[in-house]
Amino acid sequence: MRFEPLLKISNLTRDFSPLIHCITNYVTVNDCANVLLAIGASPVMADAKEEVEEFVSISSGLVLNLGTINARVANSMLLAGKKANELGVPVVLDPVGVGATKFRLETALQLLESVRFTAIRGNISELKTLTLGVGAVKGVDALEDDAVTETNIKAFGDILKPFAKRTESVLVATGALDLITDGESVLGVENGSPKMAKITGAGCMLSCVLCAYVSAVVKSQSPFSMLETAAAATCAFGFFGETAEMNYRGIGSFRSALLDAATVLSGDDLVNCAKIKRI
Amino acid sequence: MRFEPLLKISNLTRDFSPLIHCITNYVTVNDCANVLLAIGASPVMADAKEEVEEFVSISSGLVLNLGTINARVANSMLLAGKKANELGVPVVLDPVGVGATKFRLETALQLLESVRFTAIRGNISELKTLTLGVGAVKGVDALEDDAVTETNIKAFGDILKPFAKRTESVLVATGALDLITDGESVLGVENGSPKMAKITGAGCMLSCVLCAYVSAVVKSQSPFSMLETAAAATCAFGFFGETAEMNYRGIGSFRSALLDAATVLSGDDLVNCAKIKRI
Amino acid sequence: MRFEPLLKISNLTRDFSPLIHCITNYVTVNDCANVLLAIGASPVMADAKEEVEEFVSISSGLVLNLGTINARVANSMLLAGKKANELGVPVVLDPVGVGATKFRLETALQLLESVRFTAIRGNISELKTLTLGVGAVKGVDALEDDAVTETNIKAFGDILKPFAKRTESVLVATGALDLITDGESVLGVENGSPKMAKITGAGCMLSCVLCAYVSAVVKSQSPFSMLETAAAATCAFGFFGETAEMNYRGIGSFRSALLDAATVLSGDDLVNCAKIKRI
Repeated sequence: MRFEPLLKISNLTRDFSPLIHCITNYVTVNDCANVLLAIGASPVMADAKEEVEEFVSISSGLVLNLGTINARVANSMLLAGKKANELGVPVVLDPVGVGATKFRLETALQLLESVRFTAIRGNISELKTLTLGVGAVKGVDALEDDAVTETNIKAFGDILKPFAKRTESVLVATGALDLITDGESVLGVENGSPKMAKITGAGCMLSCVLCAYVSAVVKSQSPFSMLETAAAATCAFGFFGETAEMNYRGIGSFRSALLDAATVLSGDDLVNCAKIKRI
Repeated sequence: MRFEPLLKISNLTRDFSPLIHCITNYVTVNDCANVLLAIGASPVMADAKEEVEEFVSISSGLVLNLGTINARVANSMLLAGKKANELGVPVVLDPVGVGATKFRLETALQLLESVRFTAIRGNISELKTLTLGVGAVKGVDALEDDAVTETNIKAFGDILKPFAKRTESVLVATGALDLITDGESVLGVENGSPKMAKITGAGCMLSCVLCAYVSAVVKSQSPFSMLETAAAATCAFGFFGETAEMNYRGIGSFRSALLDAATVLSGDDLVNCAKIKRI
Repeated sequence: MRFEPLLKISNLTRDFSPLIHCITNYVTVNDCANVLLAIGASPVMADAKEEVEEFVSISSGLVLNLGTINARVANSMLLAGKKANELGVPVVLDPVGVGATKFRLETALQLLESVRFTAIRGNISELKTLTLGVGAVKGVDALEDDAVTETNIKAFGDILKPFAKRTESVLVATGALDLITDGESVLGVENGSPKMAKITGAGCMLSCVLCAYVSAVVKSQSPFSMLETAAAATCAFGFFGETAEMNYRGIGSFRSALLDAATVLSGDDLVNCAKIKRI
């Protein structure tokens, strides 16, 4: 279907080139930097407590990703997140593997207590863990029982809505079928390729794209809701994956092709490709 | 030659999808995660002392790689390794550059004292250093004098055997000719491409593949020895390199092609390609 | 034009294979290691205070890159840099984002006070910041007002010359037009592709290539000045980018193609492609 915000917001990142400060893991950080550059944003990766607040103050968006979190960097995230809130800089949380260990859950809950996130992106197991305050996640992947399908998406939406409302965050639960909610509405997004789950970093990259989209909308004072903006980011990134899958030869070249798609596709290419449903 | 364990074990990683916890360096960590995904395993990278034991307890295998080791992470490795031993989770050591500095050697020796490793993979200089307790390594590459050849492989095997026996580990010394020993038998593996030494991370990736193979065998209670399993991993990874080399245009595309080969090749493709010799 | 040092120096890295110790950021470290391998050098990445001096003592060159600096690693840089000076090992500084935060500027100035750098490579804003001791940098990119052009390159050269003289360093300010000065002469280099600014790591990679070139010249006692050597590195890396751009499909494949070009191009391919001007 045609989804106008997708046309406009994805062009905004090129027009306004938001600087996105990422405090993120060392596994996928290079892909995160490159996908931000690909869509026209500008990345800064820095995690020292001595400087994260200054970086936030010159940035248009902040991503906090728990992928390889440790106590030193968790402290920097807290400082950066508070500063961002103070300055009105949108913050996106990626609670990688949050159900897997107490340390991750405590770190995430402490961040949620001290920082207001514009959006939170994870797999459905991670978001359920945050919602319920307890969780079981197998490593960094979603549990199979947790797969969002056409049949259960409404039920999952009902589980997540109160958390979205309480945190005033848009939640993006990605999987074969993505679920997006702002606490009122629930959207389902079907864009994407199953190959995206077969490379490391697809989730982390989407969190960065999401932050760039949100930041570009805020920076340009465009009249899109955060729900629409999150849906646009999720559709766009999913369509990058669909495009990259066309000549699939394995995950090495797929990863390259995903960044290529992110580089060359513009709003005009994307606008008619959204597979969004209001639930 | 036809090498049955290669057929079966390489399919096991897809069937049992072992979760492999890697405490590893930040240079090649992305390639390590991707190669694990490529062969059907699932990677978790986490290094905080607060959580590594919990991650080990949900994992099927643990890789400890000294590539960019520091005191904080060395401590986490120790905690994770001990926990893995307690729970019967197989552990693989990759003693990157162990002969180059006192700190690396001490860290490795302390790990060897406290943790039982199912397998240790390095270049021949690194394994000799561990065997002798002293060493000289030029950076992270093997010394030229240490190259394993058809002529000296038996002699190198004799040097390494007692160390394998003492540590109850299978040793995998990779190079143009790979040497594998469990303290009793010695195998030589000729699979591989000279281009693999020209990218960063080939060794680190093999250590991960090796851990995934070992973990899949243990998890599935398959009747393969660790010697056979190590040989299967080494042959398979070598053959990924041979496949990737076919359209060689430089190391950027070779690195991609290596991951592509790891994604698409299955046991059926691999089983007839082993170049193994009993020494 | 034909530029003889380019022919000879770029072959030196293959003939002498200098070991380059990089204390660098975790965003682009993999590309840094791979580009060093591509040109025939050998990379070591290590940042623990317990071992950096030992690594320096077996290395032919040292790169200090501030990309994701923190207090622990800043201390290691100081130790490594001093040791390198003591042993006559050339050191290259890459002051990533130095104008963006006080912490970066202080770290860089402390390094400059304690360590003599053979070369310093950054964008023009970063080098101006170091020269003036204060600065404003938008993240890690150069400010638009700071773009070096044919019209202002002489003026920028005059700003940087005293700093080059005082630090006894060759300065390499990269951008659409690169400026190189040793405090006496100023060179302009036009090699390169605008796509290089669209991937993360092009600057970091050039700093490594520059260090390898400098180290190979020193190691081989070749009669090239550091100004010529820096120009050769800058031209060569720029030409890798020009070559990679030929089949441009996006930044994913461009990044791969850049490493491929670095692998296959030799002095003979490069020597006639230099676009250098004495200013």
